[in-house]
Amino acid sequence: MGDTVKYLLDEARLPKAWYNVVADLPAPPPPPLHPGTLKPLSADDLAPLFPPAVIEQEMSAERWIDIPDPVREIYRLWRPSPLIRARRLEKALDTPARIFFKYEGLSPAGSHKPNTSVPQAFYNQQAGVKRLTTETGAGQWGSSLAFAGSLFGLEVDIYMVKVSYEQKPYRRALMETYGARCIPSPSPLTASGRAILAKHPDSTGSLGIAISEAVEMAASRDDTKYALGSVLNHVLLHQTVIGEEAILQMADAGWAPDVVIGCAGGGSNFAGLGFPFLREKLAGRCSPRIVAVEPKACPTLTQGRYAYDFGDTAHLTPLVKMHTLGSTFMPPGFHAGGLRYHGMAPLVSHVVELGLAEARAYGQVECFAAAVQLARTEGIVPAPESSHAVRAAIDEALRCKASGKAETILFNLSGHGHFDMQAYTDYFAGKLQEVTFDRSLLDEALAELPQI
Amino acid sequence: MGDTVKYLLDEARLPKAWYNVVADLPAPPPPPLHPGTLKPLSADDLAPLFPPAVIEQEMSAERWIDIPDPVREIYRLWRPSPLIRARRLEKALDTPARIFFKYEGLSPAGSHKPNTSVPQAFYNQQAGVKRLTTETGAGQWGSSLAFAGSLFGLEVDIYMVKVSYEQKPYRRALMETYGARCIPSPSPLTASGRAILAKHPDSTGSLGIAISEAVEMAASRDDTKYALGSVLNHVLLHQTVIGEEAILQMADAGWAPDVVIGCAGGGSNFAGLGFPFLREKLAGRCSPRIVAVEPKACPTLTQGRYAYDFGDTAHLTPLVKMHTLGSTFMPPGFHAGGLRYHGMAPLVSHVVELGLAEARAYGQVECFAAAVQLARTEGIVPAPESSHAVRAAIDEALRCKASGKAETILFNLSGHGHFDMQAYTDYFAGKLQEVTFDRSLLDEALAELPQI
Repeated sequence: MGDTVKYLLDEARLPKAWYNVVADLPAPPPPPLHPGTLKPLSADDLAPLFPPAVIEQEMSAERWIDIPDPVREIYRLWRPSPLIRARRLEKALDTPARIFFKYEGLSPAGSHKPNTSVPQAFYNQQAGVKRLTTETGAGQWGSSLAFAGSLFGLEVDIYMVKVSYEQKPYRRALMETYGARCIPSPSPLTASGRAILAKHPDSTGSLGIAISEAVEMAASRDDTKYALGSVLNHVLLHQTVIGEEAILQMADAGWAPDVVIGCAGGGSNFAGLGFPFLREKLAGRCSPRIVAVEPKACPTLTQGRYAYDFGDTAHLTPLVKMHTLGSTFMPPGFHAGGLRYHGMAPLVSHVVELGLAEARAYGQVECFAAAVQLARTEGIVPAPESSHAVRAAIDEALRCKASGKAETILFNLSGHGHFDMQAYTDYFAGKLQEVTFDRSLLDEALAELPQI
Repeated sequence: MGDTVKYLLDEARLPKAWYNVVADLPAPPPPPLHPGTLKPLSADDLAPLFPPAVIEQEMSAERWIDIPDPVREIYRLWRPSPLIRARRLEKALDTPARIFFKYEGLSPAGSHKPNTSVPQAFYNQQAGVKRLTTETGAGQWGSSLAFAGSLFGLEVDIYMVKVSYEQKPYRRALMETYGARCIPSPSPLTASGRAILAKHPDSTGSLGIAISEAVEMAASRDDTKYALGSVLNHVLLHQTVIGEEAILQMADAGWAPDVVIGCAGGGSNFAGLGFPFLREKLAGRCSPRIVAVEPKACPTLTQGRYAYDFGDTAHLTPLVKMHTLGSTFMPPGFHAGGLRYHGMAPLVSHVVELGLAEARAYGQVECFAAAVQLARTEGIVPAPESSHAVRAAIDEALRCKASGKAETILFNLSGHGHFDMQAYTDYFAGKLQEVTFDRSLLDEALAELPQI
């Protein structure tokens, strides 16, 4: 028959090192700056928040960084992840294109996030840390860190945006099942939480406030560090295990991709698949277009400005140069909560700025239509975030159909949607609206960017 | 390190045939009876409900039945499923036992159910059927049939117990994402539904009513057949792909199991893992104990009577000899909805009656404790049904610890619990109660068994 093909890798071929794209870029990325001195950040500046090994990775320009054995052992719970040839989808689209996807939804938390939560937990445990703090919105990242913490005997305190804490009890239950503590943010446990509550006792919270609480708590306790699920260099680094596997699997399949696609919120799953292929491209071994897909409602790469900005709304973080909508910009609500971030990973921004990757934005209704088409052909219900990559892959396949070109398309299916079924319910009920992007609000937010 | 080991099979070793235990049993199973004539059922009696290929499998005594190529192609979306050595759990229990589990939660619907929904949909499509009807309680089976129907272009109408339809919108959303139609039961679409509604306009439904509606609708339309998710011989047959893979994987791992464990509601996932090992045992190639685990709140095998009974509460089905609590027995509510059935697969009952397998019952609180221990060591959050197998495996490992015996334990982790997080929330909140089993109600129900 040959209708569906799944390319697995033998465990022995699980990558032994992560790939650091910094080593191969034609220009070095602009350094992060200390918000007080505006001088390039030092390792010491990060020491209150991260363990030494993580800081070293964050600042490294080494091409390959070994994956520690204990991390590889845990990766083997769900890795190597399968590469799947979407033959049924191809047939449904009647396209000459070959569509492949890398499926990251088989991890215990259901997404690519454990690729970085596991090494982060490991390095913290090695450094004698007892407790990790983090923030989470919808809960994808929080549940992944909770999972990793449980494996390394770390306490995990998760500041969860209060409105999500109340509306998404099942993600919270997942975090608690892994033994983590979920705290609705703003909380009375931190000074920043108490300050907000004093002013707005009914505050439903925001990711910005939750970050402030998690950072404050980590900085104020010796046995506690902070963990972040996207944006930073070391997070993107850990995700490259996706692309390194995919390179081996595409070779097994006998096709070189003409297009490599990932959705981009903070940028880590896009970079995880895209950066290893970018290396291959820079080395002349293949020549794919590399495409980051973002939501029209939060179009950082396609509508933002490339400038130094803060990573959080409370301006506690270093300044990083990235495509940003302005740290005061409040994106409208939409279902792909994981893509609802005002900035973009500095490395992804840099790569786009260098012309080595391109960006595209879609509305959520067209993305859900694509997600349903994937579910009905390949059986997998994508997370709303991942549906953006599905939409782009389908559009590329339809372009191939129109032009008669048999190109090879590869996308990252970064997670399943089993915790996001309310979004599908809304979609089928016709309740999903296309969010109109308000340019004047963006201009206001951009006007407030730090003048650097 | 070697802390975790995942045994995969190459796709080429995906079993080519299902195993029919009937061929190897020392005594043939008692035949199903026509409820009117009390004579053994004929193929014609089943023709209104099932396509010829399914009826042939239901009545077959052939040892091996080929898996059609189109079914194997779809199996490859998630099969072969991994066999995992639970080294972290072993360490946490400080047991000399080796614990392995076969993980069926990676299927698109998150459980073992697609192993049978896919061939059932295939055979129906081959027979020119346009529409399948079925019932579902919590939605595990309904979503699996919806998935299979979408792949073969069949309409799927799912009569979902009304209380679940209203309380479990996310499972419903999953079925609708796959293109199926979910109908709250009792419904005005069928005579049996209308009869109930006339008497009880506020009826919240039951599995018995939903079966009646699905069967009535299938029997009354030429282009429509019925599909069942457990209990029947052909369903158990399809699930043996689990055990056939596990035999190869245990050989790869280099260990023969001393205990093989599955949870049992209708009996299909237990049989799927257990029957192939039973063959090996009968042939003298290994000698595991084979253990079916059921809930104390619905203890069919451990407290029921082995007798002819109806499969549904409305008495539309044939009479089958099985361990039963009586078709009028209403099990109390508990979280493992998939184990809340008054009867047991006739083949499982027969095998237990022959002394070839043993049965054991657990309460739900001790099962959730085991599930949480698995989540915190191996990362996988089990479905409430599967947690019964986890409990039994842990207890066997603790027995090994007490006796100092290094036995090999294998259990079936039949599905993940991502759609069941409310149960975990209740568990952590201390709201889960041990359901007291009322023996007098059972005696009443057993007194009403047909006198055959």
